[in-house]
Amino acid sequence: MVRAEVITIGDEILFGQITDTNTQWIGTELTNIGIRPIRKSSVGDTEAAILEVLAEAEARADVILITGGLGPTKDDITKTTMCKYFDTELVINEHALEIITSFFVKRGRPMTELNRQQAALPKACTYIANYWGTAPGMWFERNGKVFISMPGVPFEMKNLMTNAILPKLKEFFETPVIQHKMIRTVGIGESFLAERIEAWEDALPPHIRLAYLPSFGQVKLRLTATGTDAEQLKAENQAQVDKVLPLIQEFVFGFDDDEMETVVGRLLKERGETVATAESCTGGYVSHLLTKIPGSSHYFVGGIVSYSNEVKINQLGVKPETLAEFGAVSEATVIEMSEGVRQRLGTTYGIAASGIAGPNGGSEEKPVGTIWIACAGPSGTVTQKLQLGKFREQNIQYTGIYLLNVLRKQILANR
Amino acid sequence: MVRAEVITIGDEILFGQITDTNTQWIGTELTNIGIRPIRKSSVGDTEAAILEVLAEAEARADVILITGGLGPTKDDITKTTMCKYFDTELVINEHALEIITSFFVKRGRPMTELNRQQAALPKACTYIANYWGTAPGMWFERNGKVFISMPGVPFEMKNLMTNAILPKLKEFFETPVIQHKMIRTVGIGESFLAERIEAWEDALPPHIRLAYLPSFGQVKLRLTATGTDAEQLKAENQAQVDKVLPLIQEFVFGFDDDEMETVVGRLLKERGETVATAESCTGGYVSHLLTKIPGSSHYFVGGIVSYSNEVKINQLGVKPETLAEFGAVSEATVIEMSEGVRQRLGTTYGIAASGIAGPNGGSEEKPVGTIWIACAGPSGTVTQKLQLGKFREQNIQYTGIYLLNVLRKQILANR
Repeated sequence: MVRAEVITIGDEILFGQITDTNTQWIGTELTNIGIRPIRKSSVGDTEAAILEVLAEAEARADVILITGGLGPTKDDITKTTMCKYFDTELVINEHALEIITSFFVKRGRPMTELNRQQAALPKACTYIANYWGTAPGMWFERNGKVFISMPGVPFEMKNLMTNAILPKLKEFFETPVIQHKMIRTVGIGESFLAERIEAWEDALPPHIRLAYLPSFGQVKLRLTATGTDAEQLKAENQAQVDKVLPLIQEFVFGFDDDEMETVVGRLLKERGETVATAESCTGGYVSHLLTKIPGSSHYFVGGIVSYSNEVKINQLGVKPETLAEFGAVSEATVIEMSEGVRQRLGTTYGIAASGIAGPNGGSEEKPVGTIWIACAGPSGTVTQKLQLGKFREQNIQYTGIYLLNVLRKQILANR
Repeated sequence: MVRAEVITIGDEILFGQITDTNTQWIGTELTNIGIRPIRKSSVGDTEAAILEVLAEAEARADVILITGGLGPTKDDITKTTMCKYFDTELVINEHALEIITSFFVKRGRPMTELNRQQAALPKACTYIANYWGTAPGMWFERNGKVFISMPGVPFEMKNLMTNAILPKLKEFFETPVIQHKMIRTVGIGESFLAERIEAWEDALPPHIRLAYLPSFGQVKLRLTATGTDAEQLKAENQAQVDKVLPLIQEFVFGFDDDEMETVVGRLLKERGETVATAESCTGGYVSHLLTKIPGSSHYFVGGIVSYSNEVKINQLGVKPETLAEFGAVSEATVIEMSEGVRQRLGTTYGIAASGIAGPNGGSEEKPVGTIWIACAGPSGTVTQKLQLGKFREQNIQYTGIYLLNVLRKQILANR
């Protein structure tokens, strides 16, 4: 197995001033091509610290990926430090200079000597063109080991990796063939899921590994098959999926990159159906989930965020008597909300949520986390009561996913 | 300066399966009490890797903070590895056992031998009670250096740090007194801000440092004063704020922990005023921002997500002629949207957004990223045209912040 270390350079990461999303992304991508990350390190902007971490990584790993410290200002010292580490010197790279120059010309901005110096690269490295920014990538080889230096800007780093570095690594190291298959479930906890599929999991062949990846009411099951023949591995993954699906069918909403909102959107679009939202406790979050997806205007017509009772009555047609008798957080109210928005906005489905998101506002009878959801459609209205936790933002997010899942099931039931 | 290293343990971090939010949080908290993080490392769940990183960290740092690997299952080996590193053995801690037992009793769940073993701690460590989960914290001392082992669950780790470890560290190391002051700006880029305040920044005394922290249309300016007297440092920070404010007043929306939505909420609540939203391209995101805040029902009445033209016409009263003549993305339309929602929902203010969020749907005249926003209030309606980028989610987020900022300015203008 080829071993990798990932090094990030910058005081701002150590001091917690920025969120490092790079190393997680790099870890996933390396794992995907069969390279095993064995260490991640962050060091500050000092030459001694960078030299030390490079030497440590070289002793342990086959490939060392470095991000950050390539900006034009004085505190970015990765390039000069790499020169020192590889006992080489900086030389202007003409192609890099061309790209940087055109970058400034396009934006109509003046180019300084500092920017010109970004085209200066260590003689010992292979230049990797950065068409997405001004700091080029660098590829060093020594004793069969590879060092890669990339800019820290996530957009630039990801483009360099995807378009140049990952293909180059696959070629250089003859990495094994890896195939992933993801099953996405909702509404069942990790341990209950594990119990249901225990026998299947124990019977997996050694070259197919299973990972449980939980997040917000969802658990992703990821199969990773390692071997030499991509088509065969793909078929083996699929055979395992076919075996396990009957055990967990009612919880599975998608595969691979499917998100709940894309699955729902795809179903609606296929059927030429539409949806509208009536949101109380989720306060617009469900509409936001639906409209995050490009092209959602094909099936999402609009919604009413009915935070006050007046809006529930005037904009959704909820009866004042219903609110008086059962309260805003009740099955009767979400039924009228979902049916009201469906009728007024003229959609195939109307979905609604009303509850106590917290942290305050609960009672003995309806504690914080009590939430009613409903979906009105051509064949009637279904409801569900959720009993969630104490944390406002989590309650909003869980409710969003569960409400879209109720909609998904209704769409499928109307097939 | 006391130097710290932060070590996270777990294959799932290396392989990119989970997002590590712990180390950023720890980095911030350590910096806040005057301890300098000099290295962050992540290693997998193997004894050799953990022993190696511990020895490296001990050679460089004064305090080593370790998270993860404390679960009840076999792959969690931090505790036994710490025993090996400190040449000690595991002994059941009675207080820890009590907490763990009551944890299971409260939840009515059976307790297994594996759970009981979570109360077994290395003899050489000082026990740190974890009232938020089942894995206790551990504090080791050797040659004036401190090693701290904590569970990886963020909620538990943060509670252990805040309630026990940070106070203990401040006492043990006699760290300097640090005072932070944050100024929050919106609508001006980092480099333009830097130009405006260059003379002020250059004149800062050496014990007060300035950091620029940019995110989504906002730039936070953070002053960090280091010394011995908290009250004096606080006063010095405030004096610097008073000096710089006149240079950037029109961009400042808050201080310290203020978020745009909390500032707007506070202003509305103080004045007993209300707001309603009419959202097209932001699709519910602005309502979601407002309702994320507990107690927002005091000033947020509701909103209309008018994705389709029919909803704009029927629910908001936008004139069909306006849409026909100027299009949905136009100043005329957002004026009618904001005034319509204000009138129909009976609020002090109505805010509206309509634009092309992308990635498709643009034209020569109105490219992707063209967005109109409006705020209708007691003294009339103001509008603003935004020209944003190509990325849908970013466009939605920027628009949300800018729209709330227009509302904020209108509230202040109506003083």
